[in-house]
Amino acid sequence: MSEKIIKPSILPGFMELVPKEQILFNQMKDTIKTNYEKFGFLPIDTPIIEKSEVLLAKSAGETEKQVYRFEKGSTDMSLRFDLTVPLARYVAQHYSELEFPFKRYHIGKVYRGERNQKGRFREFYQCDIDIIGNNKLDIINDAEIPAVIYSTFKDLGFNEFTIKINNRKLLGGFFNSLDIEDITMVLRVIDKLEKIGPEKTKEELKLLEVEYENIERIISFIEIKGTNSEIIDKLKVLNIDNDRFNEGLKELETVVDYIKLFGVPEDNFKIDLTIARGLDYYTGTVYETFLDNHKEIGSVCSGGRYDNLASFYTNQKLPGVGISIGLTRLFYQLREAKIIEPKEFCLTKVLIIPMDGFLDEGVKLSNSLREMGINTQVYVEKSKIGKKFNYADKLDIPFAIVIGEEEAKEKVYSFRDMKTGEQEKLSVSQIADKLK
Amino acid sequence: MSEKIIKPSILPGFMELVPKEQILFNQMKDTIKTNYEKFGFLPIDTPIIEKSEVLLAKSAGETEKQVYRFEKGSTDMSLRFDLTVPLARYVAQHYSELEFPFKRYHIGKVYRGERNQKGRFREFYQCDIDIIGNNKLDIINDAEIPAVIYSTFKDLGFNEFTIKINNRKLLGGFFNSLDIEDITMVLRVIDKLEKIGPEKTKEELKLLEVEYENIERIISFIEIKGTNSEIIDKLKVLNIDNDRFNEGLKELETVVDYIKLFGVPEDNFKIDLTIARGLDYYTGTVYETFLDNHKEIGSVCSGGRYDNLASFYTNQKLPGVGISIGLTRLFYQLREAKIIEPKEFCLTKVLIIPMDGFLDEGVKLSNSLREMGINTQVYVEKSKIGKKFNYADKLDIPFAIVIGEEEAKEKVYSFRDMKTGEQEKLSVSQIADKLK
Repeated sequence: MSEKIIKPSILPGFMELVPKEQILFNQMKDTIKTNYEKFGFLPIDTPIIEKSEVLLAKSAGETEKQVYRFEKGSTDMSLRFDLTVPLARYVAQHYSELEFPFKRYHIGKVYRGERNQKGRFREFYQCDIDIIGNNKLDIINDAEIPAVIYSTFKDLGFNEFTIKINNRKLLGGFFNSLDIEDITMVLRVIDKLEKIGPEKTKEELKLLEVEYENIERIISFIEIKGTNSEIIDKLKVLNIDNDRFNEGLKELETVVDYIKLFGVPEDNFKIDLTIARGLDYYTGTVYETFLDNHKEIGSVCSGGRYDNLASFYTNQKLPGVGISIGLTRLFYQLREAKIIEPKEFCLTKVLIIPMDGFLDEGVKLSNSLREMGINTQVYVEKSKIGKKFNYADKLDIPFAIVIGEEEAKEKVYSFRDMKTGEQEKLSVSQIADKLK
Repeated sequence: MSEKIIKPSILPGFMELVPKEQILFNQMKDTIKTNYEKFGFLPIDTPIIEKSEVLLAKSAGETEKQVYRFEKGSTDMSLRFDLTVPLARYVAQHYSELEFPFKRYHIGKVYRGERNQKGRFREFYQCDIDIIGNNKLDIINDAEIPAVIYSTFKDLGFNEFTIKINNRKLLGGFFNSLDIEDITMVLRVIDKLEKIGPEKTKEELKLLEVEYENIERIISFIEIKGTNSEIIDKLKVLNIDNDRFNEGLKELETVVDYIKLFGVPEDNFKIDLTIARGLDYYTGTVYETFLDNHKEIGSVCSGGRYDNLASFYTNQKLPGVGISIGLTRLFYQLREAKIIEPKEFCLTKVLIIPMDGFLDEGVKLSNSLREMGINTQVYVEKSKIGKKFNYADKLDIPFAIVIGEEEAKEKVYSFRDMKTGEQEKLSVSQIADKLK
């Protein structure tokens, strides 16, 4: 009776890794988590499935079409498409059980039915932090966020990256001072400056019916260059008589000062007046982060300040500031660009290889090593010794211990460095010292 | 302009925790992960959404009705309902990239549209390990699994628990020797013995048309009691002339011997001939684990040996052995029974409280402490000092450091134990020593 074989495969747009890659991915995820915790963020975990009525309370715009939405029984439900809407719902729902400022991190999978395209994922990890205030939230928090980004990307092994900073009030105030009403559309054009260049930007602004004089002012404004303090100085001497502009400028200056104080080197953060973040959501400080030598990857960590997190779920005013790392996409791009490679690295520290008849000794030795906190595997299958060594080799297990008659009797074991092939005779405690 | 407020809530059957509970949950999850890695299991992560055709290749039986299945575009997809089917698909799909025996762990969420009932979850974490052989897999692996269970539950803080062990070949062979054909039905009845008692069991067996004489034999068989070796001896003297029975007996004896060798105390594992595991899936060793003082919770960790993992996806014969911990349900039940409580514990080790005008000093101190690997939060909001201490208190942050003029000048800080209220003046390095 032969069964019908179904070809094993997964849906397009879903990432699945072999263990060696998975270990690398998990290490990145752990590094992010460790850094988030270092700054006092607390973990939350929310359901992947939510009520559609709640999850889609605020129109998700373009994203809404991508939502996985379905019915089970008479319940209309959807898979979360980001971690921000669930955060808003969570804070509103558990408001009385939380302490504010509420610093939370959330690392989890989100779902978007994106068009099928290389490097775009339908299931991906987001790693978010947000600081939520109750009614108010100090501007200093906006300076701590880049400190977390800096610490995280350093620990991920990067040195050359730039956290770009801007302020939406500053931008908005500037455009108001030019009597430009439809700021959103203009910001969207400006956001693309780096990609499309100044000439194309001018053309697009013309299409938005921005006056010639103002286009020149806009271009010279967003092209203000220099060190962070030079930029601040140049913005000051513009002498723009607009409250919003000046509030934004003051915020930006404070944020820049405190980012320094939080220990982020000047090389790693930079005011960039073209950064606007397309979303209406942000109301103050905005961030994007670029790898200096791989700008083609785009921003690897973005976010900003918002006035009110959860207006759809509560009348409480909940201002906040946060960022998100799209880990699945980042991992994919770093792998594609060969910036990261799975190391010759295994979570298992040692493989015990018992010769025929010495399995018992091998098991006992494995107990001792594990008790000392050493990840240990015993090769229990009956097979040739060459095959057993090959197994350690293929899995990048760094050391192997062979146990035969002599070793069992003398309690001194052949300890082999799988990389160099060097072998020495060691006692259990000597082995433990080597492996710790 | 007031927006319509939508009541923030989640679907019934989904668990969501406040941070204090979440930290406890995550600690349990990490403990399980650490123990799985200690024995050489490698991590995998598979998509939560799979092709329905692949995921439901083998009828999921009763579970099939509970599957969250939907279409997006023209694609028929389903949410995974366990981690075993995805493992089968994974091993078949990545067969040539894996080393065998393939030891993998997988900790992730699965979905079942269960009837709405207290303590039943529609989204829950499973924590699985499996050892998959290529064509064959040594019986010693069946003895390693209880060693992992033992190590894990010890580290979870339990002392009094029993891993119950049986063998399906032994059971099957025994029933064959009585000429009972429909073993599955009989096993299902036996599985319930502990719950329904011997009299009810006899009645149910009678309904299955088991002969009177055989019912007596069955009852006296499954009531064989004693130490593990006494039970083995009693099984031997039954002198049952059935190859399957004797093969199962030999396996059980080997497994019991090696469980001991793997360091599991006799108190924590026990042959129990009533354990059958309802599923047809298992073919040899089977496990269930009970908390001695909370048997009402049911098995907290179950699994067993199977002949062929992935017959629906490949012609390769892939025998395996594994177990699963249903963490969400376990956590819920342990909390309900007040066996575990969120400890006065916070991931953040210290809260820095700057007096008015000393925020800069506070930020600098936080940088130093974080560089030494200490999770540190600075309270940056402007508010009364009492409120700041209260914040540390509410979040169970164990220590607070106050910085005012004196502290800033002398670089000696008021270090307060939030539990005892004791306060002392310490230098940065003294603080670091205390906190590490």
